[in-house]
Amino acid sequence: MAKFVPPVSPLAPKTVPTLPAIDGVTLATAEAGIRYSGRTDVLAVGLSPGTTVAGVFTRSKCPSAPVDWCRANLGGGTARALVVNSGNANAFTGKKGRDSVALTAKIAAKAAGCKQSEVFLASTGVIGEPLDAHKYEGVLDQTFAAAKPGGWMDAARAIMTTDTFPKVATASARLGAATVTINGMAKGAGMIAPDMATMLSFVFTDAPIAAEALQALLAKGVKTTFNTVTVDSDTSTSDTLMLFATGTAEARGAPRVAEAGDRRLAAFKKALDAVLADLAEQVARDGEGARKLVHVVVKGAVSNASAFKVAKSIADSPLVKTAIAGEDANWGRVVMAVGKAGEPAERDKLSISFGDVRVAHLGERDPAYDEAAASRVMQEDVIVLTADLGLGRGTAKVMTCDLTKDYVAINGDYRS
Amino acid sequence: MAKFVPPVSPLAPKTVPTLPAIDGVTLATAEAGIRYSGRTDVLAVGLSPGTTVAGVFTRSKCPSAPVDWCRANLGGGTARALVVNSGNANAFTGKKGRDSVALTAKIAAKAAGCKQSEVFLASTGVIGEPLDAHKYEGVLDQTFAAAKPGGWMDAARAIMTTDTFPKVATASARLGAATVTINGMAKGAGMIAPDMATMLSFVFTDAPIAAEALQALLAKGVKTTFNTVTVDSDTSTSDTLMLFATGTAEARGAPRVAEAGDRRLAAFKKALDAVLADLAEQVARDGEGARKLVHVVVKGAVSNASAFKVAKSIADSPLVKTAIAGEDANWGRVVMAVGKAGEPAERDKLSISFGDVRVAHLGERDPAYDEAAASRVMQEDVIVLTADLGLGRGTAKVMTCDLTKDYVAINGDYRS
Repeated sequence: MAKFVPPVSPLAPKTVPTLPAIDGVTLATAEAGIRYSGRTDVLAVGLSPGTTVAGVFTRSKCPSAPVDWCRANLGGGTARALVVNSGNANAFTGKKGRDSVALTAKIAAKAAGCKQSEVFLASTGVIGEPLDAHKYEGVLDQTFAAAKPGGWMDAARAIMTTDTFPKVATASARLGAATVTINGMAKGAGMIAPDMATMLSFVFTDAPIAAEALQALLAKGVKTTFNTVTVDSDTSTSDTLMLFATGTAEARGAPRVAEAGDRRLAAFKKALDAVLADLAEQVARDGEGARKLVHVVVKGAVSNASAFKVAKSIADSPLVKTAIAGEDANWGRVVMAVGKAGEPAERDKLSISFGDVRVAHLGERDPAYDEAAASRVMQEDVIVLTADLGLGRGTAKVMTCDLTKDYVAINGDYRS
Repeated sequence: MAKFVPPVSPLAPKTVPTLPAIDGVTLATAEAGIRYSGRTDVLAVGLSPGTTVAGVFTRSKCPSAPVDWCRANLGGGTARALVVNSGNANAFTGKKGRDSVALTAKIAAKAAGCKQSEVFLASTGVIGEPLDAHKYEGVLDQTFAAAKPGGWMDAARAIMTTDTFPKVATASARLGAATVTINGMAKGAGMIAPDMATMLSFVFTDAPIAAEALQALLAKGVKTTFNTVTVDSDTSTSDTLMLFATGTAEARGAPRVAEAGDRRLAAFKKALDAVLADLAEQVARDGEGARKLVHVVVKGAVSNASAFKVAKSIADSPLVKTAIAGEDANWGRVVMAVGKAGEPAERDKLSISFGDVRVAHLGERDPAYDEAAASRVMQEDVIVLTADLGLGRGTAKVMTCDLTKDYVAINGDYRS
C-alpha cells in the first residue's frame, strides 16, 4: 500500500497572522535527520534569564519520556531552552528513552549555556522507536547559536508531522504601562494519538508573570480550549502544552505579577485564552482527513460537567462523524450519542438542531422539519450541532471534525 | 452520492447449521412494506401457552418505543407472540411511537389469540421516523396463521438491515431425561447503532425454566458474550436480546426448573452460553465494513473489571482499528489505548503481543521483535491482540473488528 499523502485541509485558515518578535525569545530550526530527510525536524528555542514556565501534559498512564522530563523540571519554575523534534515521539522506549532525554538535555544545556533543569523537551512522531540523541551532537550548539527573534512560521513547520498546515496565533494585551505579546504555535490533531500526529503546543509571552500564576492561567485556559477539542477520542502519550514568560516587558513598564487572581491580568487572560482557542481550533481544522469543522453545543443539562460528557459523547461518535462527512442531517445518531453518554437525559425533553434548523423537538422529529433546509446546513464547512436536553442550565461546547475515508487511509497505512 | 451496498463480509461463517424445530415455536415472515420493498421485513413468532421469557435491553437513556414496551411486559414472565420488523426502529418517535407500539400489540394479540401483555415487539432501522402500524392490519393475522415450526433462516433474513449475512446458531443440552434444544438468531453489528443496523437477538428453547431463572441465566450469559462485542463504541437505542422457553420438553421428561442455581441446568447453561457466544461472534464478523475479526485479550490487570475497561479502550480505539485494517502491527497505538483507559497501568510493566509474536515487553520494543513475523500475523482474518499489564490477575476478552473505508462509506451515505 502506498503511503497516503493528504492534501492541505480545506479547513485551513484563509489568512495567517505575522507573529512579532518577543523580547527574550529566539528561535532556530535544523535538519537533524531524526526520521525525516530533506526537511527541518528540530526546533530550538532560547529563552532569556528569568523566564518562567507553566505546562499541562497528557493524562495518559503511559506518557512519553520527554513528558516525564518536563513534569520533573516544571517544579523549578524557570526555563532557558526548549528543544522539540518531529518524527519520533520517544514514547514507550523504556530506559533507552530516559537516557536519550538525559543526553538531549545535556547537549542542549551546554549549547544554551544553562542548567539541565532549565531545559524543556518535546518529541512527536512514531511511538516505540528509540530516539538516537547522539544525532543532536554538533547540531544543537549550532542551532542555538543561530537562534534569532523571528522565524515563527519556520518553527511551526519544523514540528509538523501529519499536519497539513503550520499553526500559529498571536495576540497582545495591555499589562500596566506596557503592551505585552503572546505568540503560540501548535501541531497535531487534538486528542488524537496516531504515531505521527501527537498534539504539541508552545506559547510565549514577554509578560512578567510568576511561574505559579502562569500555571494557574494555563490550567484554566486549557479547559475551554484544547481540552474541548476531539478528533477521534484517542489521547496521546505525548500531549504537551507549555507557556513561557520571559518577563522582558517589565523593562517597558509591565508590573511583575505574582498571583493568577491579580486584576491587572484581566486583559492578558483574555488574550491568552484567545491564542489557545485559536490554536485549538486550528488543530481541529487539521484533524486527519477532516473536511468539516463541527461545534457541538449541549444546553439544558443538569450541570456543566454533565453537558461536557454528553458533548464529548456526540463529538466522539463515529456514527455522528461519518454522517457529517456524508452531509447527512442524521439526528437519530445524535439521539443515540446522547443516550449512550450515561448522563441524565430524557428522550421526551430532547431537542436537536443543525445550524439554525431544529430537526427534533421534545422527543420526536420537529413537525416543522425541512429536509432541504437541513441539507443546506450540512453542506457548509463549519457546522454547529446543538442538543438541548431540556433538564437544567448546564452547557458545554466541544469542537471536532468529521470522520472521512481519508482518516482511515492516513491511519491504515503501513508505518513504512 | 450513490448508496454503498457492501458485499457479504469475508468473515461470514463458512458453514451454516440447520436449526431443528422447537416444540411450541412457530415462525413466519411477511412483506409489510414498512420501509423496504421486494423483501421480507416482518417476522412473527408464535409461542405455545406457558412460554416463559427473559430479556436484556439497551442501557441507552433514549430507548426505542418497543424497548419500553418489552421492559413493561417482562414482569409478567410469559410470552405468546413476538413481532419483529426491520427498516424502522420506532425510536425517538414520541407519542406516535407509543401509539404505534400499542396498535401493533393489539393487532398481534388478536392474530395470535393472546393478551397484549404477552406480546413482545422489536424494531430495527431508521431512528426518528414514525412507524405506521396500520400496515400490520391484515398482515399479522395471515402471518401468525401461516406460522410453522421451521423456517429459521427465513426468519433471520427478515430481521436484517445492513447485515450482509443472516445469523443463526443452535445447541442442545441434556436436561433430566430429555435433550433440550436452543436456537438463536441475531442481526446487527454489536454495540453499534447506525440508523440501519441495530443489534437484535432472539433465542428459543423447549426447556421448562421459570421466567426468573431464565432472566438470571440470560443476564449472566450476556456478560461474557454480547456485552464483550464492540464494533464502534456506539450503543443502540434498540439493543434487544430475548430468550423464550416454551417448556415443551417437560412432556419428554425434562424437569421444570425454578432456580438459575439448580445444578441440573449445568449443561443447559453451557449450551446457552455457546449459542450466545456464537451469535455475538457472528455480529462482530458482520461489523460494518469489517475485514478482520479481532480478539482483544487483557491480562495482568488489577481486577477483571479494570481489564475489561482497558480491553474496551483498545477495541474502541479508531487508531488501533485503522492500523489493523492496514495490517500494521502498530503496537504504539495499543500503548496509547492502554494509557488513555484511565485504569491502573505502568508503562514499564506492559507487554503486547499480536498473535504469538510479542512486539513489546516491559515498557519498550521486544528486543527479539521480528517485523516479518508480526506482519504475517496481521495478514490473517482473525487476530488475537494481547496486552499484559503485569500488575495483577485481572483478565478480560473483548471482540471487535477493524475500521475500514467501507465503514465510512456505509455510514457516510445519505439516508435517502
